[in-house]
Amino acid sequence: MKIQLALDRFTVPQAIEIADEVRMYIDWIEVGTSLIKEFGMESVRELRKAFPEKIIVADIKTFDNAKYEFEMCFNAGADIATVMGAAPMVSIDTCINVARNMGKQVMIDLLNISSEQLQDLCKYEDAIFCLHISKDMQELTGIKQELKSLKVPNALRKIENVRLALAGGINLEFLNELGKNNAEVAIIGSSITKAEDKVLSARSISEAASKIKGGEQI
Amino acid sequence: MKIQLALDRFTVPQAIEIADEVRMYIDWIEVGTSLIKEFGMESVRELRKAFPEKIIVADIKTFDNAKYEFEMCFNAGADIATVMGAAPMVSIDTCINVARNMGKQVMIDLLNISSEQLQDLCKYEDAIFCLHISKDMQELTGIKQELKSLKVPNALRKIENVRLALAGGINLEFLNELGKNNAEVAIIGSSITKAEDKVLSARSISEAASKIKGGEQI
Repeated sequence: MKIQLALDRFTVPQAIEIADEVRMYIDWIEVGTSLIKEFGMESVRELRKAFPEKIIVADIKTFDNAKYEFEMCFNAGADIATVMGAAPMVSIDTCINVARNMGKQVMIDLLNISSEQLQDLCKYEDAIFCLHISKDMQELTGIKQELKSLKVPNALRKIENVRLALAGGINLEFLNELGKNNAEVAIIGSSITKAEDKVLSARSISEAASKIKGGEQI
Repeated sequence: MKIQLALDRFTVPQAIEIADEVRMYIDWIEVGTSLIKEFGMESVRELRKAFPEKIIVADIKTFDNAKYEFEMCFNAGADIATVMGAAPMVSIDTCINVARNMGKQVMIDLLNISSEQLQDLCKYEDAIFCLHISKDMQELTGIKQELKSLKVPNALRKIENVRLALAGGINLEFLNELGKNNAEVAIIGSSITKAEDKVLSARSISEAASKIKGGEQI
């Protein structure tokens, strides 16, 4: 399983410094929604420049204006951009098409969607599906309780070689449990970025993740 | 009815120049989602500085991380910030609370929500509800056809003195028709910003809007 380091609520220089510290233990770097909304595409460009060897995920959470936003992310150097599964299908369609045309990838954030919406999304077999416990939900209910209830819906399991990412306060303790879901990517934020010893935390998580089978598509 | 000028797909200096040209014919200025995602909070700060007398709407389309994003917008000078109605209720709750604490307003974007979600949102009686035809939908189906089908749901009509905003390719031709909905705000983008004669277009729209009764809450 790969590690996607989620960088949120930092300045761009802070984000670069943290990612650089744990560089050898992470696979993908997520330019968090808060970085994009606070600093714009400059955040994506700077992280792209600082980490030319990494997969850069722009967590832009597109809901409309899909072509403009996705081209903006990919032109700024992102390899993957995110769209909300709750967005209108016309927008998600557009994201998929822009990504295919530019040789890039789409991550669909499944936060707060209905089972009917999920069913509709399953046609995007080449997308990465992100099962997501929101920051606000984590703060409301406590992380551990929510993570335990994180299950991959049957609709997604039916997709052959489905690409899954898991997000939402994931720490070392739950990494193995989550591994049972056969996810390609674990999205980790504060368990690394807020750790007293970031390198130690990243190394432990990386070692645990390396023992978990996951997709190898990218 | 008030006019909210939506500024999207421009640089910040372009946005300021356009808004300044039509300054006397508009009431609220929307820092579009594309400006925020491309240039960050700098876009809100610059428009706030250039238009101290206007209501500034930050169309941040929050879906998570609500406290951080809303405080960021209000601290940058916005009077109103937007949250997606499709977001988890815990996040919308947080937006409402942050706005109340800071003496600011929330606009709830009703794009792509279910009737159950709308029912739940009706408890936020002091929010501004934005009925929204998305940019991507406009481009797919043609603006006129979609605008004709824009109806205020009964659930919203039941709220006493409900505050309504309408968005989605609104032009002069449809302004009067939309006026029947008793909206407080018409959100106008390209009908002004892409007009050959922006001042003429803004003046005509402003004159038509001034004859339509709407809310006066802000």
